[in-house]
Formats: sequence, C-alpha cells, structure tokens
Amino acid sequence: MSTPVKLISLHQREAHERTWTPFFTEKVKSLGDYTRYENTVEWSDDQKAEKIREADVLLTGWDAPAVPEELSENPGRLRYICHIHGEIRRLISRKIVSSPILVSNWGPAPGPGVAEGAMTMLLASLKMIPAHVTEKRAGQWQIKQKEWAGTLRNLRVGIYGMGVIGKEVVKLLTPFGSRLKGFDPYAKDWPEAVERLPSLDDLFAEVDAVVVTAGLNEETRRSVAADQLARLPNGGIVVNVARGAIIDQTALLAEVRAGRLRAGLDVLDTDGKDWMEPDDADRQLPNLLLTGHSVSFSPWNHSLPGNENLLVPFQEICLENLRLFRDGEEPRYCFTSERYDLST
Amino acid sequence: MSTPVKLISLHQREAHERTWTPFFTEKVKSLGDYTRYENTVEWSDDQKAEKIREADVLLTGWDAPAVPEELSENPGRLRYICHIHGEIRRLISRKIVSSPILVSNWGPAPGPGVAEGAMTMLLASLKMIPAHVTEKRAGQWQIKQKEWAGTLRNLRVGIYGMGVIGKEVVKLLTPFGSRLKGFDPYAKDWPEAVERLPSLDDLFAEVDAVVVTAGLNEETRRSVAADQLARLPNGGIVVNVARGAIIDQTALLAEVRAGRLRAGLDVLDTDGKDWMEPDDADRQLPNLLLTGHSVSFSPWNHSLPGNENLLVPFQEICLENLRLFRDGEEPRYCFTSERYDLST
Repeated sequence: MSTPVKLISLHQREAHERTWTPFFTEKVKSLGDYTRYENTVEWSDDQKAEKIREADVLLTGWDAPAVPEELSENPGRLRYICHIHGEIRRLISRKIVSSPILVSNWGPAPGPGVAEGAMTMLLASLKMIPAHVTEKRAGQWQIKQKEWAGTLRNLRVGIYGMGVIGKEVVKLLTPFGSRLKGFDPYAKDWPEAVERLPSLDDLFAEVDAVVVTAGLNEETRRSVAADQLARLPNGGIVVNVARGAIIDQTALLAEVRAGRLRAGLDVLDTDGKDWMEPDDADRQLPNLLLTGHSVSFSPWNHSLPGNENLLVPFQEICLENLRLFRDGEEPRYCFTSERYDLST
Repeated sequence: MSTPVKLISLHQREAHERTWTPFFTEKVKSLGDYTRYENTVEWSDDQKAEKIREADVLLTGWDAPAVPEELSENPGRLRYICHIHGEIRRLISRKIVSSPILVSNWGPAPGPGVAEGAMTMLLASLKMIPAHVTEKRAGQWQIKQKEWAGTLRNLRVGIYGMGVIGKEVVKLLTPFGSRLKGFDPYAKDWPEAVERLPSLDDLFAEVDAVVVTAGLNEETRRSVAADQLARLPNGGIVVNVARGAIIDQTALLAEVRAGRLRAGLDVLDTDGKDWMEPDDADRQLPNLLLTGHSVSFSPWNHSLPGNENLLVPFQEICLENLRLFRDGEEPRYCFTSERYDLST
C-alpha cells in the first residue's frame, strides 16, 4: 500500500463550524492523513510555510490565513492547494497560482445557492415584501407604494455576468416567463434563452430589473454607476449577490433615497465595508432590502429529519478533488492565471 | 351583417379600475354592443334581472352584484355569463350554473401570478426576509434566528391542491431542485415530478414546507388543523395563497407564536375576516409574513415603457371567450355543477 496523502489545514482561530462539520471532517480523514492547526493567527509566515511544506495538500477556506507567498519558490512537499470556498485573491497570490502548485476552488458549487438568493431578493423587491413587513407591523394593511408591485411575467430582466451564478439565475428565472437579457464580455457558452447585449449601457437601457452576478476585478469595479442606473425605469430594481464594489453604492443609494429605484443588496461597499453602521440612516429606506451577505446560507436544511449527514455542494466538490488528487488525477476547477484575474 | 351581440355589465359602484382599463373596455366594445351600469348597489333583484334579460351576455366580476337567481328560470335573451374573475359562489348560484345559461370564469388565468406569489412567500419565509427587514432596521446586522435560513435544494416541499395554481407552483419550483410531494384527491392529470400522497396527513408528515393552493369547499375548510401542523418539523413553513379558511388559523398561529413553525399568509381567516385589526399582536410575529391578499398584484408592469396597452391573462381570456361566443362557438372554462362544487 502506498503512503497516504498528507493533508493539512490552518485556521486563524477555530475551524469554520458550518464548513468543517463532524461528518465532513470524517470524510476528509478518510482520504488522507489529515492534520488541523487552529489559532494560527499569531504565527509568522515562516512558521506557516514550514508546516505547509510538510504536507502534499493544503486545505484553505474563509477561516484560513493567507498562504505565504514564499511557497511558490520553495513548496517543499506541497503540490496542491484545495481552497474549499470561492474568494481567492485575499488568500492566495497570483504568484502561487502561476507556480507548479495546483490551486482549485469550489468551482460551480455556490451557483445554485447564490442564484436562489438572487431570486429571493428579486421577487421580494418586486413584490414589495419589505414594505409589507414594515407596514403590517405598523398597523396598515394595504402597502402605501402598491403601484410598484410587479410580476416577472414579461418583465425585462437583465443579468450582469454570465458565469456559474448568472447561468443558474437564468435556469431559475426561465419558468417565470421574463424576457431575459444579459451582458458578459467573457462568457464562452451563452444560454440560448437570453438576448446577449454588447455593453453594460445597453443592458441598463433595455431592462426593468438587473441581477448582478459578475466577479469583482478592475474592469467590473464600480462599473454600475450613475450613468447606468439612470437608464432604468422608475421603480427599476437592482439586485446584487456578487460583490459590493461592482456597484457605485453612493450613486445607487442616491436613486433609492430619491424613491426612484429599489435595490436588494446581499453585499455592500459602504466606505469599503460589507456592512452598515447600526445608526446608518439608509437601513430605514423602504425600497432597500439588505440581507447581510447571508442570503445563500442554509443551516436549517442540516437540522431536518434525514439530513444529519447532508453534504453541501462545496463540500462534495472538495472531497471529489481530494479523491482525484489521491488517485493521481487532476483536481477540477483549478486556476489558470487568466481565470484568477477574472475572479474575486 | 348579423345583429351585434348585446353585452352588459353591472357594477356595485364604479367599474373596477384595474380590470376595466380603457384599453380593455375598448376591446370589449369591439366585440359587441356593450352597455355598462354603475352604482347598481341600490337596485332590486328584479331591476337587475330586467336589465340583464335584454342582453345576450352578462359580464361580471369582483365589483359586480350577485346575479339574480330568477334568471335561471326566466333568462330572457341571456345566454352567457362571462365572469371575468375567479371566485364564483358569492356571485352566481348553483341553480344558474345548472340552467342552460353558460357560465365561464378566468380559468387558468391567475395560475402563474398566484404561483409567483407563492414562490415569493416561500422563498422569503425560507430565507428569513421578514427578520432581515426588521432587524436591519433595528440596528442589528446578522439575524437572530439565522439557524432557520434554508434552501429549496433537496427540501421536501408539499403542494396541497394540484389545480391550475398547484401545477404552476410545480413548474416554478422544478429548477430549484426540491423534492416535491402533493395531495389532491380530485386532480386528474398529475405532474410526473411530484410524488402523489394518499392523504393530507401523509403530506404533512413527509414535508418540510407546504404550499396551500386548494379551492375552498366543505371538504377543504379548516382541513389544515393542529393534527396536520404538528407533523411538520421545527421551523416548518406553511404558505397559503388560496383561501384563509382552508387553514385552522388559531392552530397555525399558536405554532407560529410558540416559535415552532413559520408562515407566509396572503389570505387570512381572522374571525372570518381576510385581514387583521391594526392592533392585532400577531402582526408582530417575526416568523409570520403577511401580504394582505395582494401578493399577485402587478400594477408596476403596466407603467413600464412599452407596456401601456398590456392585457393581463384574465382580460385576454375574457376577450377570447366573447369572441368565441360571438362566432357561435362555446366559450372556454365553462362551469359544470361538479366543477362549481369544487370551486371557491
């Protein structure tokens, strides 16, 4: 029998509870000789690199420290970084991705969940659910702004970004009978049911609601600005489930405050923060739905009868990749420099 | 050229604005010799019957008085009652439906809209949108009950009633990847993707969320009671877009108040009323989403560029039926006594 693959994970503090469920940890252990280091927040980069060099595979995630860049030149035994989650740039530098070390992430795993979150925010905004909630509690019965309640049927809905999440949004939207339009200069395969528009300006000029699913990079940063927003009709909807900084938030909130647009924002860019201060007056805007970067969380499903050992898609992809690596095959969803540059 | 068909409509007060848009009224006029009587609320049944006997077709709707039963025996010229909306029993008696006068309603027209409303309420409840709205406004960022946030993926979702609305809900739910189960003792064609269960008790025992779409009749009245609700898991969801009285509301609200279940109710049965008093304490329940029987309204779409002359599905069906009748063909969605008995 060959030597088992040596697996390692470093965590800033405790291993992220919803990722490293007991069942998932057990599954990881079945695929190699796994060691976990918690509370590494005080470790120096050299200390981290030293430990990592002893393993074949480093598992990283939201709760992990940035991977020391020196590994790109002196990887030791390390051949593969299996990043369990999505966001890559904060954790792993371009230099490491360009080195012989393989780097994968969760690939399409979050697509269905984030797309479901986007649908929730789109429908909730369209149907004025925030107004229903607030006004019913305040003693009214019919909402004040009932003229903004709408239907997806025949609505012109734009999708900005036709990657994994955008394509899932298209799938979920299709039976609702909207007229779908999209913009993404990089997408290679384009869903047939979606009209492809040549620019972001065209997209905003031809739709009533937009769902932002693009990755954050220098081209997309603040690409949704006052100019684009002005093209939406009164009551137009902007849903963002991607990254806050893709939208010029000052411009968007000005339109929402003016009562001209409505927005459903799972992600924010409030002075660079992904949240708002407790006393931020914008929290009270009746046309703004905020979900605190958690609209795709689904802990409830794990508590349901029969679901005790449920694995979520990103856990399944991680385990499948560890299996592929162990068997001498290439893991899926590995980064090229090109893909890295288009990612968040 | 033959004599034009004589069309008549009676309205309690003014003709319902969203139904009788100028564009729709114009279209009705193009299909016959149309006369409208408003403010008939003081008229006697005899007065109403006398006017109706002069027409070939009576158009009725939400805003119309009940059709005098005496027309069943003495219809005069009346051969067809084209009911523009859905709810039939309050307006047209079984005796009239059993007479030679044809009676149609909007048939499947509301299905997509109501199903879209049901999806909105299901997703909003599942994703704890009411808590997000209330708690963000109150200064918190992460919601308190985040362990109840879920996903439709692999969730066991039940559909009570597999009529027009139930089938549309199935269509909209399908790409979300839920495990669908249903109950309806009367449904003739059953969607392949849905497991058919033999009783309502079985349905509630085998699902995590239920969408109620059944018609209200003596069999379905208060059919969702304490016994059924107790079978749902903790955090289980009940969405009702049908009629309030199908659910034993006292039993459901007891479970919601206890923090055991959550509910999204577009319709109510609060001491027989479809709404709650302004000071009703249940309005404050964090696990209860109320939409005041308007979740399928969509006035916004009519205000959008290019949609000035939009006809909604029930208007299209009404016009198509007037056309069929004028051309000597049978209108669609005519009532038999059997269908009448299963309807609201």
